Amino acid sequence: MRGLPKPTRIKTEYSARDAGHFKIVHSSKTSFARSGVIRTDHGEIETPAFMPVGTAGTVKGMSPEDLTGLGAQVILCNAYHLYLRPGDGFIEKRKGLHSFISWDKPILTDSGGYQIFSLTGLARVTEEGVTFQSHLDGSRHFISPERAIEIESNIGADIIMAFDECLPYPSDYEKTRLSLDRTLRWAGRCKEAHSRKDQFLYGIIQGGFYNDLREKGVEGLLEMDFDGLAVGGLSVGEPQEKMLEVLEKVIPIIPDHKPRYLMGVGRPEDLVEGVQRGVDIFDCVLPTRHARTGALFTHGGEIHIKNARYKEDDRPLDPDCGCYTCRHFSRAYLRHLFMAKELLAIRLNSLHNLYYYLGLLKGLRQAIEKDSLEDFCRKFYQRRQSTQE
Amino acid sequence: MRGLPKPTRIKTEYSARDAGHFKIVHSSKTSFARSGVIRTDHGEIETPAFMPVGTAGTVKGMSPEDLTGLGAQVILCNAYHLYLRPGDGFIEKRKGLHSFISWDKPILTDSGGYQIFSLTGLARVTEEGVTFQSHLDGSRHFISPERAIEIESNIGADIIMAFDECLPYPSDYEKTRLSLDRTLRWAGRCKEAHSRKDQFLYGIIQGGFYNDLREKGVEGLLEMDFDGLAVGGLSVGEPQEKMLEVLEKVIPIIPDHKPRYLMGVGRPEDLVEGVQRGVDIFDCVLPTRHARTGALFTHGGEIHIKNARYKEDDRPLDPDCGCYTCRHFSRAYLRHLFMAKELLAIRLNSLHNLYYYLGLLKGLRQAIEKDSLEDFCRKFYQRRQSTQE
Repeated sequence: MRGLPKPTRIKTEYSARDAGHFKIVHSSKTSFARSGVIRTDHGEIETPAFMPVGTAGTVKGMSPEDLTGLGAQVILCNAYHLYLRPGDGFIEKRKGLHSFISWDKPILTDSGGYQIFSLTGLARVTEEGVTFQSHLDGSRHFISPERAIEIESNIGADIIMAFDECLPYPSDYEKTRLSLDRTLRWAGRCKEAHSRKDQFLYGIIQGGFYNDLREKGVEGLLEMDFDGLAVGGLSVGEPQEKMLEVLEKVIPIIPDHKPRYLMGVGRPEDLVEGVQRGVDIFDCVLPTRHARTGALFTHGGEIHIKNARYKEDDRPLDPDCGCYTCRHFSRAYLRHLFMAKELLAIRLNSLHNLYYYLGLLKGLRQAIEKDSLEDFCRKFYQRRQSTQE
Repeated sequence: MRGLPKPTRIKTEYSARDAGHFKIVHSSKTSFARSGVIRTDHGEIETPAFMPVGTAGTVKGMSPEDLTGLGAQVILCNAYHLYLRPGDGFIEKRKGLHSFISWDKPILTDSGGYQIFSLTGLARVTEEGVTFQSHLDGSRHFISPERAIEIESNIGADIIMAFDECLPYPSDYEKTRLSLDRTLRWAGRCKEAHSRKDQFLYGIIQGGFYNDLREKGVEGLLEMDFDGLAVGGLSVGEPQEKMLEVLEKVIPIIPDHKPRYLMGVGRPEDLVEGVQRGVDIFDCVLPTRHARTGALFTHGGEIHIKNARYKEDDRPLDPDCGCYTCRHFSRAYLRHLFMAKELLAIRLNSLHNLYYYLGLLKGLRQAIEKDSLEDFCRKFYQRRQSTQE
């Protein structure tokens, strides 16, 4: 594992808005990790936090009641998907996304940039914006930074993201530099277009895997004074080492009072490393996507439930887990459900994986507050080694 | 609607076993309807009752916690499916089905007869039993009445069904007569093979749509003194009229103290008519199967949620329903989930449809006990006519 960079705090003056939105509760003395509280009109988010992903206005298979029961504090929804179906104007007429999906806690929407570049495959970028074809029906669409903010305003999440260009990995220096510059200009236009006072707007740091570009990305966004900063362009296929390098570059130059959001990352070990490097919020489809393919996270590592070795295994999935699935069912039953393609397999797997992720973040948060983060992380890796099977 | 036959009660001596298993709470004076309690080692079933269907050891998409929350008192599981996968011996090693699936309330298993004749398509019947090919992998299997009881004993449900031959609809008299005779001989072998004192064994009345054969079917089973009697061979494509004719023929000649189970039926109106004719328990895949195709039961009739008219319909599915789905979500959201093929659509639809069925049976039970069944049934049809849309 990489050694951790020493924390050097950057203090700046808080604006009233900043102070109201994010409050640090406890800072680690040995790393950039900190616990905090993000405040929104729909309630507080204790950080570091994990956001389950609710792409089309639903975390796959989970009801709001399920999510609340699991301790989810905030969910992420995708502006791109909701814009295409059922439409941002449609959601606005339904009094916004919270009302439409019956989730009264905080919501964050991404801006759609990532999906436009990863799902549509036919995106054409100009200074004005992006023209692309819907992955659903091939229909043509144009989204500019201004339109992206309008879409997010209509959807009505508590935290919204600036519209950015996402590059594939790897991309060369020149291409990355030009894209970063455009993303910064787009960020300015997003800031300009942003008007809803009840929505916090976060900027997205791009710059690929080039340190000077990442630095430029942070500085450009800081000048515009976003409510929070996100690290984008990661989890695109790079090794963990590269991802951590980027975090170690950008987080030390973000002022402490800005919430830091690591987009789309990742595996449990990525979260553990991210928190130690100062990340406050994460999102990732992994717990729910893995649930559907039968890959289950345990304290001992990942279990692939369809493996024949679990056929007659009457133990719970993870004996140290307190989730509904582990309290009631055996690996043998979970495997039976999965092999029979039963819907309950996905449900029980999703409940477990989300419980694991939310529990991991809760553990990290408590460890920060007890100044025992290093110990927590060491045990995290030890348990994997000792019980992996 | 057909007029109801006048009740003529048949009193016989109760055996100790009968008296312990089923108790009539209240009998209607104007019809064969009655409320009662079926007792098992895993708890009581208040009748008339509806059993959600848990084919492969799970009611599709519903956890035991969900089912308990919905008020389900008993579930039906299919011996045929469980025999093929994961295997009855496998379940026996897991300490029986209740333990394996974590459901501590009553379970009823059908014997597999219906599935062998409807799913496999290649069944060959001899006096000894049935040879068939698995619908899963084409493997060959032989099941005799004795083996069927052994399978059900290994699975370990509270109520188990005799092994019967199921004919397609329509079948001619001679074919039906020969099949009925064989089913009665098989019933005798099942009774002989039945040994677990904690399992109640029900006989299945066959005889197609021929009154004299149905009568013979009942008499033959009564001689063997089963713990309950089921009406089989219905819901095979016949009009409701024909189904009710059979009920009106067989139920008056079954002694009052035997629980009466109408297998595989059906739509809400079939349940309403069945209860008035003296049926105590029902099972049907309709609420969960319809949930998956977006067909939803309401007090005003069926709603097909994918219909464009619900696109901007902000009302709950059924304003008179108290289920989780109706308390939290609009038709517009349910339609959005269904069109986006989201898993939550199936979950919310299933929760609603099962709530509707279980609530309907609860309403019927209460109406019997308040001597207001006729009034309840009249209102059931009136609401459909007044609010259908």
